[in-house]
Amino acid sequence: MPRSLPDTPVAAAAPLQRYAMGIEYDGSEFSGWQRLSKHGERDPEGYTTLQSVIEEALSFVAGTPIETICAGRTDAGVHAAGQVVHFDSPVQRDPRGWVLGTTSKLPPAIGALWCVPVSDEFHARFSARARRYRYSILNRQVRPALNRHVLTWERRRLDADAMHRAAQSLLGENDFSAFRTVHCQAPHARRELQEIVVRRDGDVVTVEVQANAFLHHMVRNIVGSLLVVGRGDAPDSWIAELLAGRDRTRAGPTAPASGLVFLGPRYPADVVARFGLPEHVRL
Amino acid sequence: MPRSLPDTPVAAAAPLQRYAMGIEYDGSEFSGWQRLSKHGERDPEGYTTLQSVIEEALSFVAGTPIETICAGRTDAGVHAAGQVVHFDSPVQRDPRGWVLGTTSKLPPAIGALWCVPVSDEFHARFSARARRYRYSILNRQVRPALNRHVLTWERRRLDADAMHRAAQSLLGENDFSAFRTVHCQAPHARRELQEIVVRRDGDVVTVEVQANAFLHHMVRNIVGSLLVVGRGDAPDSWIAELLAGRDRTRAGPTAPASGLVFLGPRYPADVVARFGLPEHVRL
Repeated sequence: MPRSLPDTPVAAAAPLQRYAMGIEYDGSEFSGWQRLSKHGERDPEGYTTLQSVIEEALSFVAGTPIETICAGRTDAGVHAAGQVVHFDSPVQRDPRGWVLGTTSKLPPAIGALWCVPVSDEFHARFSARARRYRYSILNRQVRPALNRHVLTWERRRLDADAMHRAAQSLLGENDFSAFRTVHCQAPHARRELQEIVVRRDGDVVTVEVQANAFLHHMVRNIVGSLLVVGRGDAPDSWIAELLAGRDRTRAGPTAPASGLVFLGPRYPADVVARFGLPEHVRL
Repeated sequence: MPRSLPDTPVAAAAPLQRYAMGIEYDGSEFSGWQRLSKHGERDPEGYTTLQSVIEEALSFVAGTPIETICAGRTDAGVHAAGQVVHFDSPVQRDPRGWVLGTTSKLPPAIGALWCVPVSDEFHARFSARARRYRYSILNRQVRPALNRHVLTWERRRLDADAMHRAAQSLLGENDFSAFRTVHCQAPHARRELQEIVVRRDGDVVTVEVQANAFLHHMVRNIVGSLLVVGRGDAPDSWIAELLAGRDRTRAGPTAPASGLVFLGPRYPADVVARFGLPEHVRL
């Protein structure tokens, strides 16, 4: 029997390089962001997650399994214009190689936008100080056809000004229990809502909202309640009442996923400067 | 044998009521507007035209075959935000019935927007004095994912100001032979280009253009040549030279269909007033 060779040097683990990457996707045909299987395995039958598809493309480019951490996990059917992930790779590629190589392996509904090498101190989720979302509602008699994948449809005339006024009561640091789903696993419901603007442009009413972070379904639940106000079925003051009541069962229904786009995370100026991130992710 | 009954009155043909209808569609998965079969028959295998699908839905609502005439026949892959058709029906329905009934029989990519009863003197095509199109180009390093169906992609940086300046040389009544496809069946190439505006909004460059009428592929051929100017491969003055040369072979390539949206026809104010058409179709 061969004896053990205790002083054989262990192969040195390749040093890992961290990268930040911007990603865009049409979430219509995906089961949300989060992988539903173990890392490196495919999603269970009938499910396709953005994370597993993107990790598969990154792993192809790296030639080795790559795992991602994203700035904001989006639900099934929700889109992203500026998702940000980070990943650690034992092989180095130039940013252009990551972007073009990864995109070439992605389905048409997903594309990589940019890539920057960063140090281990950057974290796509924890380094972010805010997230922005936009929700778009087509407000007319008949359902959307042309841009139906990125719109929600409301037949009754919405008073966007009333929605905007009502929404301002959500600003600041508040307990958003009234707008979180029962499935939300966050330890507490306090979030700082930094900006919320409702405006009408022709037949389209948009709600653009920024917070330090969001609870599960928080944007869609806020929009669902704002729609009640917009239709005139509740006064402007109802949103403030809901917030104060902290009772999800009193609020409006969850608005559909299709109208929601994750615009992306926002990082502090010093983080953007230090890691050379694109200017549009600056808080 | 029963003798003929010459004085039995012939069943009076039901009087026909003409309707104008606004229609929106995502043309991505259609073989263009024009039906490729005889009226009332399905398109040949492998083809699906907007006209046959829309006529089938209208015919269902009417309970009898309905034929349409449109304001502008769009090519395969081209979209419409405001197509207008007219049709003559032996049965009357109220406008809401036409809109909702027809839309309920249409696939998700097509929807009826409005319907107005008009007299026989209204003609969707011949009453129109202008048509408007918008062409949208995503101008960045990586292909579009989120709104890829309604965008064309240009990787090289475009100078939208140069494109706009160059485009102004097309204004007025001109012979547009340089921008018509060889398959164009129009008897002559003189058209009056009433407005053309090129602008940039972030990563998206749009070309919005209005003419009394367009030749086949005229918008896409104009955009194809403006892209050459936008990339800096030809001076602003090249567009005027192309126009004057009347030679299709010297102009730029035909820009892809996916970026093109037919905004709709425009009718004179007196036509809009007389037939009660929606204000947004007014010239």
